[in-house]
Amino acid sequence: MKIVAPVLLVKKQVCLQNIRRMHAKTIQRNIILRPHFKTHQSEEVGRWFMDHNIHKITVSSLEMAWFFIKKGWKDITIALPLNPNWTNEINSIPEDVTINLLAESLESIRSFSGHLKKDCTLFLKIDVGYHRCGIHPENTREIEKILEFIGQSKHLTFKGFLSHAGQSYHAQNKDEIKRIYKSSLEKLLHLKNHFSRFSDDLILSYGDTPTCSIVDNFSGLNEIRAGNFIYYDLMQLKLGSCSRENIAVCLAAPVLSLHPERNEILLHAGAVHLSKEQLKINGKSIFGLIVKCNEHGWQFIDENAYLVSLSQEHGIVHASNEFIRSLSPGDTLGIIPVHSCLTANLMKDKTLYI
Amino acid sequence: MKIVAPVLLVKKQVCLQNIRRMHAKTIQRNIILRPHFKTHQSEEVGRWFMDHNIHKITVSSLEMAWFFIKKGWKDITIALPLNPNWTNEINSIPEDVTINLLAESLESIRSFSGHLKKDCTLFLKIDVGYHRCGIHPENTREIEKILEFIGQSKHLTFKGFLSHAGQSYHAQNKDEIKRIYKSSLEKLLHLKNHFSRFSDDLILSYGDTPTCSIVDNFSGLNEIRAGNFIYYDLMQLKLGSCSRENIAVCLAAPVLSLHPERNEILLHAGAVHLSKEQLKINGKSIFGLIVKCNEHGWQFIDENAYLVSLSQEHGIVHASNEFIRSLSPGDTLGIIPVHSCLTANLMKDKTLYI
Repeated sequence: MKIVAPVLLVKKQVCLQNIRRMHAKTIQRNIILRPHFKTHQSEEVGRWFMDHNIHKITVSSLEMAWFFIKKGWKDITIALPLNPNWTNEINSIPEDVTINLLAESLESIRSFSGHLKKDCTLFLKIDVGYHRCGIHPENTREIEKILEFIGQSKHLTFKGFLSHAGQSYHAQNKDEIKRIYKSSLEKLLHLKNHFSRFSDDLILSYGDTPTCSIVDNFSGLNEIRAGNFIYYDLMQLKLGSCSRENIAVCLAAPVLSLHPERNEILLHAGAVHLSKEQLKINGKSIFGLIVKCNEHGWQFIDENAYLVSLSQEHGIVHASNEFIRSLSPGDTLGIIPVHSCLTANLMKDKTLYI
Repeated sequence: MKIVAPVLLVKKQVCLQNIRRMHAKTIQRNIILRPHFKTHQSEEVGRWFMDHNIHKITVSSLEMAWFFIKKGWKDITIALPLNPNWTNEINSIPEDVTINLLAESLESIRSFSGHLKKDCTLFLKIDVGYHRCGIHPENTREIEKILEFIGQSKHLTFKGFLSHAGQSYHAQNKDEIKRIYKSSLEKLLHLKNHFSRFSDDLILSYGDTPTCSIVDNFSGLNEIRAGNFIYYDLMQLKLGSCSRENIAVCLAAPVLSLHPERNEILLHAGAVHLSKEQLKINGKSIFGLIVKCNEHGWQFIDENAYLVSLSQEHGIVHASNEFIRSLSPGDTLGIIPVHSCLTANLMKDKTLYI
């Protein structure tokens, strides 16, 4: 494989297996799988979900919602707390598209809904411990005020409680992820019970790929919104959410030069391809794991070769002398990204489905 | 200013001042200013340089070279060590476009030039101490072998030595940057003298915005390739390469929610807008400095408010309670990026020139 610039390789068969595995977990418990499309942002990958009869999706911005509306998606949750300035744009979304919004403050909802003309459902974001955003689950007075306001609103319908336990990304092992899930679920079930009078069909929606990959029994939840599981990545591998074989993306990068005297390879692969997401491996920050490209895409190798430094277009790999001496400028190496969502975002127009 | 999504604001007048200041330094010493266009990647900003009679540019990829060729640029240096697989694409570049390439190994040049049909000039990359890439300046035997090969090549002409002293980004103060420059220049002048028989017009080309901003006297050099100086950013401010007033970019970001109880603001501003480039300020890693948006774009404030955490679309700001209480969801805050090149790359299609 000889390339003039970095290309993101996506293994379709691995993606399909990842879809089926997650889908099977939800079907058996009658839970909605509403995958987060921020990971791939791709019409093609979206179609693979549709082929599996998955028609409800999650996105992380209004822009991304529009992208998928234009591709024919009809039931979209924008899982970012709403911006009060969105009203006009939401009003212009076609009537046959269901939009589910997210909010965490009365002030936002009030300001947003003033001139709202389109019927929308609304989730309340609950902070189950990540502390990025959301209402504290014990703040039931605030939740009640919001639900009363929504109840009187002309175009908003309360849909349920939504959480993203992003703290699972910092877990040390699978047991910790399970404990985070258990404690989050208890908080959400308590809220569901407490506020059941506000909705006949109150939905508990839960996210994050580590939890959704590791937990098997989602009893109590109504919906999961994992997204990264379609591709997985090095971060998920380290967390134990996936095995090597489940990883569906790899950045193919041209070798530009070799510096065996300092155990380094210069690749054309920079922050504009991979993002600067880092991961600690053996105490050192790395930006990707090196694999070998082959006729099937790539294969893992018996070599601790990591991307150790990134500038805009340059990437430096640290590897053994022996490995470096097996290469020539113009060869292609593969890089398993630390965070596939950010890499896929950068490589949107330079992706090869294999 | 009320916005539905992040927008990159670029102050045209500040950019023009930045162009004129750098240009003035080079004109007085008859040095070529060949700005690096990887910072802005913008047709419009490119035109501002052209308006100042600057017609030679630098880019960091073949793709970027094509972008600017299509916009009418006729003299382009691709400042990334060449990929041997580029030959066919280089052959297809129009005859009236001068392409200057960069290489650091005989193996690459030999492999690249086998089927080369277009006349190109070639710089040798010299490692003056950054150790990202380049030939060690004391490795004169290797340089000589390469220059002899180029001398016999049909379509390659040796242009000179090119360096990027990226170690200046890690300097602690201006004096250290000046010392790095002095030592780099000595190495390059030594090579120029040593290899003068290989070219009648051997060019020394030098990069990096910290050095080009801080050093005034470029005697001995023939060309500078700084790029970031068009926008500057927080990293350059910390290094002392610019003052606050020289910074020409700011990401305008909508406020989504307020958490005064933990001194935090949630912004719609994530890694897909800013990149995850970090900077240590008072021992803490931050992703941007918060400023106030106003009718002129933005203004700095008496408030140590920083972006302290980033996910794909969410950004968390740490600020004083008083500052937070002055805001409402839907307001707009400005973020001075840590590294404007990476932010501008992500916001290419969402830039507002003011």
